[in-house]
Amino acid sequence: MAERPERGKVASYIPELAKIDPRKFGLVVVSNDGEIAVAGDSEAPFSIQSISKVFTLTLALGKIGDRLWQRVGREPSGSAFNSIVQLEYEKGKPRNPFINSGAIAVTDVILSGQPREALGEILRFMQFVADDNAIKIDDEVAASEQRTGYRNAALANYMKSFGVLDNPVHFTLGVYFHHCAIAMNCRQLAMAGRFLANNGINPSTGMSVVTPERAKRINSIMMMCGHYDGSGEFAYRVGLPGKSGVGGGILAVAPGKASIAVWSPGLDETGNSYLGRIALEQLTRRMGWSVFGA
Amino acid sequence: MAERPERGKVASYIPELAKIDPRKFGLVVVSNDGEIAVAGDSEAPFSIQSISKVFTLTLALGKIGDRLWQRVGREPSGSAFNSIVQLEYEKGKPRNPFINSGAIAVTDVILSGQPREALGEILRFMQFVADDNAIKIDDEVAASEQRTGYRNAALANYMKSFGVLDNPVHFTLGVYFHHCAIAMNCRQLAMAGRFLANNGINPSTGMSVVTPERAKRINSIMMMCGHYDGSGEFAYRVGLPGKSGVGGGILAVAPGKASIAVWSPGLDETGNSYLGRIALEQLTRRMGWSVFGA
Amino acid sequence: MAERPERGKVASYIPELAKIDPRKFGLVVVSNDGEIAVAGDSEAPFSIQSISKVFTLTLALGKIGDRLWQRVGREPSGSAFNSIVQLEYEKGKPRNPFINSGAIAVTDVILSGQPREALGEILRFMQFVADDNAIKIDDEVAASEQRTGYRNAALANYMKSFGVLDNPVHFTLGVYFHHCAIAMNCRQLAMAGRFLANNGINPSTGMSVVTPERAKRINSIMMMCGHYDGSGEFAYRVGLPGKSGVGGGILAVAPGKASIAVWSPGLDETGNSYLGRIALEQLTRRMGWSVFGA
Amino acid sequence: MAERPERGKVASYIPELAKIDPRKFGLVVVSNDGEIAVAGDSEAPFSIQSISKVFTLTLALGKIGDRLWQRVGREPSGSAFNSIVQLEYEKGKPRNPFINSGAIAVTDVILSGQPREALGEILRFMQFVADDNAIKIDDEVAASEQRTGYRNAALANYMKSFGVLDNPVHFTLGVYFHHCAIAMNCRQLAMAGRFLANNGINPSTGMSVVTPERAKRINSIMMMCGHYDGSGEFAYRVGLPGKSGVGGGILAVAPGKASIAVWSPGLDETGNSYLGRIALEQLTRRMGWSVFGA
Repeated sequence: MAERPERGKVASYIPELAKIDPRKFGLVVVSNDGEIAVAGDSEAPFSIQSISKVFTLTLALGKIGDRLWQRVGREPSGSAFNSIVQLEYEKGKPRNPFINSGAIAVTDVILSGQPREALGEILRFMQFVADDNAIKIDDEVAASEQRTGYRNAALANYMKSFGVLDNPVHFTLGVYFHHCAIAMNCRQLAMAGRFLANNGINPSTGMSVVTPERAKRINSIMMMCGHYDGSGEFAYRVGLPGKSGVGGGILAVAPGKASIAVWSPGLDETGNSYLGRIALEQLTRRMGWSVFGA
Repeated sequence: MAERPERGKVASYIPELAKIDPRKFGLVVVSNDGEIAVAGDSEAPFSIQSISKVFTLTLALGKIGDRLWQRVGREPSGSAFNSIVQLEYEKGKPRNPFINSGAIAVTDVILSGQPREALGEILRFMQFVADDNAIKIDDEVAASEQRTGYRNAALANYMKSFGVLDNPVHFTLGVYFHHCAIAMNCRQLAMAGRFLANNGINPSTGMSVVTPERAKRINSIMMMCGHYDGSGEFAYRVGLPGKSGVGGGILAVAPGKASIAVWSPGLDETGNSYLGRIALEQLTRRMGWSVFGA
Repeated sequence: MAERPERGKVASYIPELAKIDPRKFGLVVVSNDGEIAVAGDSEAPFSIQSISKVFTLTLALGKIGDRLWQRVGREPSGSAFNSIVQLEYEKGKPRNPFINSGAIAVTDVILSGQPREALGEILRFMQFVADDNAIKIDDEVAASEQRTGYRNAALANYMKSFGVLDNPVHFTLGVYFHHCAIAMNCRQLAMAGRFLANNGINPSTGMSVVTPERAKRINSIMMMCGHYDGSGEFAYRVGLPGKSGVGGGILAVAPGKASIAVWSPGLDETGNSYLGRIALEQLTRRMGWSVFGA
Repeated sequence: MAERPERGKVASYIPELAKIDPRKFGLVVVSNDGEIAVAGDSEAPFSIQSISKVFTLTLALGKIGDRLWQRVGREPSGSAFNSIVQLEYEKGKPRNPFINSGAIAVTDVILSGQPREALGEILRFMQFVADDNAIKIDDEVAASEQRTGYRNAALANYMKSFGVLDNPVHFTLGVYFHHCAIAMNCRQLAMAGRFLANNGINPSTGMSVVTPERAKRINSIMMMCGHYDGSGEFAYRVGLPGKSGVGGGILAVAPGKASIAVWSPGLDETGNSYLGRIALEQLTRRMGWSVFGA
C-alpha cells in the first residue's frame, strides 16, 4: 500500500452513497465449521447494492429453474455494468444476471403481482440465509436511486421494448432499486453467503438452501461475471467467486471453506471496492484459498 | 446424448482441419501423483491450435513478466475469438491473451530475431513440459492456415498500426500459424498441462516450470477466457480452468489434482469441442473436481 | 412496378398505425409560384410521425439558434432510427435531429413549462406554415404510442442520465409522442414545406418564416439524415432533401422550385415509404429536379 | 478567421505527407462554359489521396455497372474513414465507396490481372478527364504509404476473409496506395471534375464520360459520403457534392455550374481540409451555389 496510499473513489452517482465515510473498512470470515473472524467496522451497515443480485438470482432460479436462461445469458459481458450496447446487439437479452440489465430481468422474474410482495420475499430470503431478522432496506438510499436512476430506467424500458420484461417497467424498477438498497454489515453478509461455500447447505442449521449443483453454478457465475469489467482482474488476483457492489462491499466464497465479506467504500475504475479486493487478495494468498492453486 | 446425437461441426475455415474424421474421440487424465487414465483415440495426434496459447503465454511471461499486461489485457472479451471490434475501441490492445489478437501479440513478445528461432523455442518448451521430444509441428496445417488466415492477418496489421507489434507482421504471423499447428495426442497434451495442476512444478521430475503464483494466475486466465464467448458456459458446466482449440481439443486443469486432455473434432456454435465439453462435465461431476463446489 | 408489385409493409409497432389501408396513395406538388398538382388520396389525413421533426427542428433553432448543436449533432448516423448504441459511444449526444434520440432532444429544447403549452406552440406553427388551422393531433395515435413507446422511453432516460434533457422525461416524451401524432393530408404537408423550397419565405404571403441561410441548412440536414439508414438511397435515387415518417409520408423539397408531399403506408426495410420513394424518383427524373444534375 | 487563426494539422500518418508546407493554399474554379478562375498555389502539385476514389468509382461503375452495389453500399458510415467496426457488423461489405474499405473494394473491381495495368488504366482515365497527360503518380508517397499502411492492410485482409476481394491482397493494396498517390494541382483537379458538373459530358470536347444519370448519382454519393464523418458538416456549410483527401485537397461540384478544386494541407479533426472547407463555404455563399437554396 505504500506505493498507492489512496483508497479509490466513493460512488457518487447515487447521492445517498456519496455521503459515506471513505475511511470505513470491515472484514468478516465465516468458516464452514462455524468459526467467525472479524476485523474493523464489521458491525457497521452499508448498502449492499449489486451484491443483492446473488440472492435475487438464487430466488429466481428457485422459481423458474433453468428457464431463466432463456431470458438472461451467463457469459461475461466485456463491458461496463451499465452498458446498453450489448442489449441492442443481442435483441434485449442481457449477457448475465449480474450486469444491471440482467439483474433487472431477474427481478422481473421474481415479481408477479405487487412490488411490495416481491420485495418482502427478497428481504425475508436475505434474513433467512443470514439467520438475522434485523436486516432492512434503507428507504432513503432506495428513494435516492429511484430519483436518479435514469440509466437503469433506460435499460428496463429497452428490454421491455423487446418483450424481455413481463411487469410494468416502474414496478420492476421499484423492486430493483429497493433490493439494491438493502443495508447489511459484514457479519450479516458473510453469514448470508455460507450456503454458497457449503454446497448449498446452511452449515449451522444443516438446512438445504439450494442443491449442491445449483450452489456450484451460482459460484461459477460469480467468478465469471461478479465484478463487471473487473471480473478477470478479481479472478487473477483473488481467485474466488465473488460479487461486488458500488457501496464498496464484496461477498467472496471459498468453496468448501468459508464465506467472506469485506467493505471499503472507495472504488477502483471498474466500480469495485479498491481496498476490498486488496484485502481479499492478501487473505486468499495467506490461506491458500484461491481455487486456482496454492 | 440420446436427445442430441450429433457431435457438432468440424472446423472448416482451415482447409486441412476440415479433413479430420468427426468420429474421433480421446480422453486422458494424468493425476498429480502420476496415475494416467486413457480412453478412446488417446494416441492419435491432432492439431492443438489455440491450446498452444497457454504455453506461449507461459513463455512470454517468462520473458518479460508482468510487463506483458501493458500489451494485452486479461478480461473476458464478451465476443467471438476473431472479433476486431474490441481492438478498435481499445486502441489496438487485445482484451486477453487467448483471443486471436491477444495470442498474436503474445507471439510477438516471444519473437526477437528470426521466426525459426522463436518457433524452435516454443516447440522445445512444449516438448519439455510434456517430457516428449516426439512432438512436432504439422507443416501442412501451418501452410493451410497461412494461405487462408486473412482474418488473423487483419488483426495483426491492425495491431501493428497501433504499434502493439514490434516485429514485421509476416514474421509474427508465421510463428503464430506454426505454433497453432503443433500436433499432439491427448496423452502428450495432458502431460504438458501437469505443471498447471501442480503449482508450477512438473510432478514427475519435481522441477519448477513456473512459480506457484504464476501457475495460479495462468489458471485464472484459462477459466475466464479459455473458451472465447463460451467461457461462461464452460465454467458453468465444467468448473475448471481450460483452453480449447478449433481442432477439437481441450486442456483442462484440476488444481491440486490432475491435468486432463480431451479431443473430439466437432465444435459447438462458440467454436469449442462439443463432445469434449460434455465429457469434461461428466468427469468433473463424478470426481467432484469443479473448483466451485462438490 | 411490374417487376415488384408489392408495396412494402405497414408499420406495426404503433398499434394504431397498423390499421391503415395499405393501398392508399397520395401526392401533391406545390410550386413556388403557387401552382398545385394533386393525385390520389391527397385529402386523406395520415399520421405524419417523424416528418414533424423538420418543424420542431425549425422551432428549436428559432428558440436557441446554433446553441442547439451543442446538444445534437448533424451527421448521418449510419444506423437505424432507434439505435441506442451511438448514444453510449457519444455520451448521450444524438448524432442528428432526425433520429429518434435527436428529435426527443429537440423537443426538450422547445419545452419549458407545461407540455400542453409546447404542444400548442408546435401545432400552431404547423398550422401557420401550412396556412391551415384545421390541422390536428390524432389523440388515439398519440395514446397508442405512449402506451408502447418503450424504445423511445429508453432513449429519453438514457439521454437524461447524461444530462442532455432538461425537463422531466415523461414531459418531454409526452410532447414528442403527440407531435409525431399530428395528422395531415398531402396537400397540407406540401403547403407546410413551401418555406423550405423558397429560401425561408412563405411564397403566398411573402412572409419570412426563417432566414434563407437557415432554410438552406435545414434542407442540408434533411438530405443527409432525413431517411435514417436509407438516406444514402434516397439521395441516390431521388436527389432531393426529404423527410420520411413511419406513417408512410415523405416531405421533399426541390429548392427554388417546389414542395412535394407523398403518402403510401407500406414501408421498405429501412422504415421509409416504399412507393413514396419510387414516386418521387420518377417525378424528379421527369422534372429534372434532382439537385445533383439533370 | 480572426477568431481561429490556425489552419488545422497536416496529416502525419503518411510520412511523406507530413513534410508539406502547411501555408500552401490554392483554389481553381472551372465553369461549365469554360471560364477558369485561379487563386494562390494553383499550379503546385499535391497528393490527391482519397479524391482519387471519385475516379476509381467512376471506372468501376463503367466496368460492372450496378453490380458494384452488391459489394459496396452507398450509405454514410457514421464513423471514421478507417473504422473496421462496421465491416464486422456488416460481414465485410463496406458502407460506401469513399471510406477506405469501400475504396479498396472498388479498386479490386478495377484490377484484373497485373497491378501495373490497372494502375495505368486509372492514370490514363485521370489524364483523359483532366485533358492533361502530365499527371503522374508520386512514387515516394506511394512507397511511404505502402510501408506504413497497416490499417489499410487490416481492412483489405478483413474483407478478403469475407470473400469481398477477388485479387491477392497485396495486388489490390498496391494499386490502391498508388492511385491515392497521384499528384495533381488545383487546376488539373478542377478540370478533371468537369464531367460531374456537366451531366457527364466534358464541356470542352463535348464528349460523354458517363451518362447524365450516372454523373448525378456519383454526385449524390459525394454529397452523402465524401467527407467521412464530416460529411454532414460539409453539406451544412458548403452545400455541394465534394470529396476530400488527407493531402488537404477537396474537389467540389456545383451541378450545372462549375467544378472547383481547393487545397490547404491543414486538416480538421475529421480529417478534412480546414481552410479548404471554409473557402468553399464562402465561395458557395457568395455565388449562391449551394444545392440547398440561395
